Amino acid sequence: MKTITLKETAGILLGHDDYLILMHKSPDGDTIGSAYALCLALRKLGKRADTLCGDEIPPMYGYFTDKAPNEGFEPKFIISTDVASTTLLSGKAEEYKDNIDLCIDHHASNTGFAAVGYVDGKASSCAEIIKYLLDEMELEYDKDIADAIFTGICTDTGCFKYSSVSPSTHRTAAELMEQGADSTFICHLMFDCKSKSRILLEKMVLDTLEFHSNGRLAIIEVTKEMMDKSGAKECDTDGIPSMPTQIQGVKIGVTMKEKPGGEYRFSVRTNEGIDASAICAEFGGGGHHGAAGCSINKEKSQAKKEMLSVCMKILGDNI
Amino acid sequence: MKTITLKETAGILLGHDDYLILMHKSPDGDTIGSAYALCLALRKLGKRADTLCGDEIPPMYGYFTDKAPNEGFEPKFIISTDVASTTLLSGKAEEYKDNIDLCIDHHASNTGFAAVGYVDGKASSCAEIIKYLLDEMELEYDKDIADAIFTGICTDTGCFKYSSVSPSTHRTAAELMEQGADSTFICHLMFDCKSKSRILLEKMVLDTLEFHSNGRLAIIEVTKEMMDKSGAKECDTDGIPSMPTQIQGVKIGVTMKEKPGGEYRFSVRTNEGIDASAICAEFGGGGHHGAAGCSINKEKSQAKKEMLSVCMKILGDNI
Repeated sequence: MKTITLKETAGILLGHDDYLILMHKSPDGDTIGSAYALCLALRKLGKRADTLCGDEIPPMYGYFTDKAPNEGFEPKFIISTDVASTTLLSGKAEEYKDNIDLCIDHHASNTGFAAVGYVDGKASSCAEIIKYLLDEMELEYDKDIADAIFTGICTDTGCFKYSSVSPSTHRTAAELMEQGADSTFICHLMFDCKSKSRILLEKMVLDTLEFHSNGRLAIIEVTKEMMDKSGAKECDTDGIPSMPTQIQGVKIGVTMKEKPGGEYRFSVRTNEGIDASAICAEFGGGGHHGAAGCSINKEKSQAKKEMLSVCMKILGDNI
Repeated sequence: MKTITLKETAGILLGHDDYLILMHKSPDGDTIGSAYALCLALRKLGKRADTLCGDEIPPMYGYFTDKAPNEGFEPKFIISTDVASTTLLSGKAEEYKDNIDLCIDHHASNTGFAAVGYVDGKASSCAEIIKYLLDEMELEYDKDIADAIFTGICTDTGCFKYSSVSPSTHRTAAELMEQGADSTFICHLMFDCKSKSRILLEKMVLDTLEFHSNGRLAIIEVTKEMMDKSGAKECDTDGIPSMPTQIQGVKIGVTMKEKPGGEYRFSVRTNEGIDASAICAEFGGGGHHGAAGCSINKEKSQAKKEMLSVCMKILGDNI
């Protein structure tokens, strides 16, 4: 993948047409916000643009996703936003995996799958990059674009909490508010609004909380039975993996989630400089320094044992 | 109370000496951050300054409060920060209630108890006002002052989530980061760090969750027994009152907390424009539009019934 500058990225976008913007599977606020902001911006500049995600877009994002219904033309230029690797594409989006023209991303671990790419591993979110890109293109913002970008930034930073937040992130948030982003509505919806099912699920999950390594390692479980009993949907589990590392003294927090096929998906979160992506890499997964994931296709207790063993080794313990 | 400008406030602070800065009872990040930032700034300008709170300052704030130990001189100029009314002073701080020279606050409901006052009801926090004041005084910032102010702003805005956050709030946060505030450490400590006791307490509190008025009113309880069983301290209950309004559809969230004397303290949080301070005013309490409190000195079930009755009336229901 040829690395290009922000200015060159802007030039490319102004020079083509008929864009299709891909999002990663299990879409989050950043991939959705980035793709829709870019789509809306390109349309505003007189281009044709659509978005595509292999999985369903959660309806909670409707306040901006409803503003850009797909038009269904034949795409000529394929872009991906917030996609670190083509293994993260699913469904119809996966069909484009070998033909991506431009990749815009903030994962330092980006595998370089596109023809050209702008990757800034220091940006708080892909949406923050989209803001700088639209500024470079001298876009005149409207509320929907500002809402989409604000959503990407605030969801990917835990509402301006994570170490990825820079002074520029806060200044960008200030500008987006002035450009019409309804920050109060967005922050409330994304962070202070839990369904009754989610509350019930949290209670059940907390009942599985286990500590290891003198309280430095904590693990929780989300089972199919809990999902059924609580009535929780997939999107109700957002944020659950952050629960163990929120407990005082915990350095590694592991969430094991039962998938439909019986496989276990592990989410690892870390504090104080421990590399979560290195832990998940042991099982073929990856992610960021403080948040990563992997799957272990083994029987539950064996999968759990193997994950705990790797975590304990990193903490300098024996099993 | 004579209302003065920010410039006049700066002039007064530059013109006096031997300052004592009062905080409100049950001190939170904003009153503590504001008082200590001002104290540290005045000392940096060559003045003598101390802080005083009637209640204990939670040790979690030690990263900046430890930097300004009291010097114990005879104070000549009394300031209050983030104190809306002298009824919010306790212990030794209460002794100064009729002799406060300068009040700096962001509560629109401030009762005007001081000789002169600078009150900006639109500021996100008292700490945000302190930042503008120190800028006006052309202070050269250091890490401790930046940490103290950042703490006040982020704690009083739920980490940049509430409607009180303006573009200026985000720009102020950006500047404080550049002036040395360790925003990642502070946000983690204030929002992502729960004691094991707190986690246990949350589980017990969720077991008491009750809905009324078709899910638009939710109430939770915190009893002395739960506090004992979980081992939670007073500071472990911070944020508990926000739990009910985080549930989808809830417009009024009530938390009733048993006090040592058997009295019940009610915290009311509201969504979508319902005035929490009006609800609490019915029982002699007060606060902000979205967050208020009051005490009802009656037997538990009667106190609860009266509170729910007022809330239901506001929601347009019968009991």
